[in-house]
Amino acid sequence: MMKTDEESHLRMTQRRKEGHEKKQAAAALEKGLLIVNTGTGKGKTTAAFGMAVRVLGHGMRLGVVQFIKGALHTSERDFLGAIANCDFVTMGDGYTWDTQNRDADIATARKGWDAACKMIESGEYQMVVLDELCTVLKYEYLPLDEVLAVLTARPAMLHVVVTGRHAPEALIEVADLVTEMRPIKHPYREQGVKAQRGVEF
Amino acid sequence: MMKTDEESHLRMTQRRKEGHEKKQAAAALEKGLLIVNTGTGKGKTTAAFGMAVRVLGHGMRLGVVQFIKGALHTSERDFLGAIANCDFVTMGDGYTWDTQNRDADIATARKGWDAACKMIESGEYQMVVLDELCTVLKYEYLPLDEVLAVLTARPAMLHVVVTGRHAPEALIEVADLVTEMRPIKHPYREQGVKAQRGVEF
Repeated sequence: MMKTDEESHLRMTQRRKEGHEKKQAAAALEKGLLIVNTGTGKGKTTAAFGMAVRVLGHGMRLGVVQFIKGALHTSERDFLGAIANCDFVTMGDGYTWDTQNRDADIATARKGWDAACKMIESGEYQMVVLDELCTVLKYEYLPLDEVLAVLTARPAMLHVVVTGRHAPEALIEVADLVTEMRPIKHPYREQGVKAQRGVEF
Repeated sequence: MMKTDEESHLRMTQRRKEGHEKKQAAAALEKGLLIVNTGTGKGKTTAAFGMAVRVLGHGMRLGVVQFIKGALHTSERDFLGAIANCDFVTMGDGYTWDTQNRDADIATARKGWDAACKMIESGEYQMVVLDELCTVLKYEYLPLDEVLAVLTARPAMLHVVVTGRHAPEALIEVADLVTEMRPIKHPYREQGVKAQRGVEF
């Protein structure tokens, strides 16, 4: 249990402050991060778009490639796509379970990846979001080695954010920041609540 | 391993499509969700702001109360605060380890909570984000019972998003959608990379 008296609180926050300052002093390196949001829970794409808002709030330039959700109407695209320093490319024929043709999926993935490579290699962006790229890799729509080669050769200060379930081990290996989103409770599964405007799309 | 031949792919995607359609048909309920993003990993706040972007993309009205990060410059505030249908309130004197006075923290938490209650009870918002409220509850800066009473009595269609480490069990109990963000790899800890513009703030 938490101690709530004034003195122990003071000691605790002082210790924390000292520890935090020490860690901050040690962490001095700046670099473009390869960030992976994976797992079966919510928040992989939404956290990527939350970072996108930070980037845009700083006046930095953002690129987004949506690999799978291209055929769905997403409000992120309406909102971010209208902003001057954000380039938003959507690919894909909806979620994978809407497509029934593997060759078409591979061709779509390739088009998305070409757009992603252009953004990454241009040196004009501070962050590139590759939404659902893990899903593309899981279905083997793109060769993993080719993708990893481009991601690891990215410009030194470019942040790349990759989202999707089932991130390949080799991607986690080369990534700097990896978070697993774990479902604890889900209303869709447990209460029969449908996907809702503003939450899911 | 994934089977990659055309036929098994077709069978698999057909099965998925059927399963997905069945689940969608069953999920018919619409309601305002109580959403909790917790855990020690990245993405709790960023996922909340990603949902905020969705809400704003739909032209819905958004309210945000930041409980802990008020004293820090956050680009989310610059970006979202400038948008017409978003009201952004920041409270708090920085992260807890920057404050050394429990009474002052409690007073600040109370001011933030008053602002949150006004937003929740007004009926004028489609989503209210209560950033770092879990942290406030963990430190017992606000009575848990009082907070839960307001959250559970929210307007029927209002989505409330609560973020922060160590969500109390009683909050998880009444929530609709709970996700734990788990750190798999962190550059700050493992590589000595410092918090960077566009990623962490």
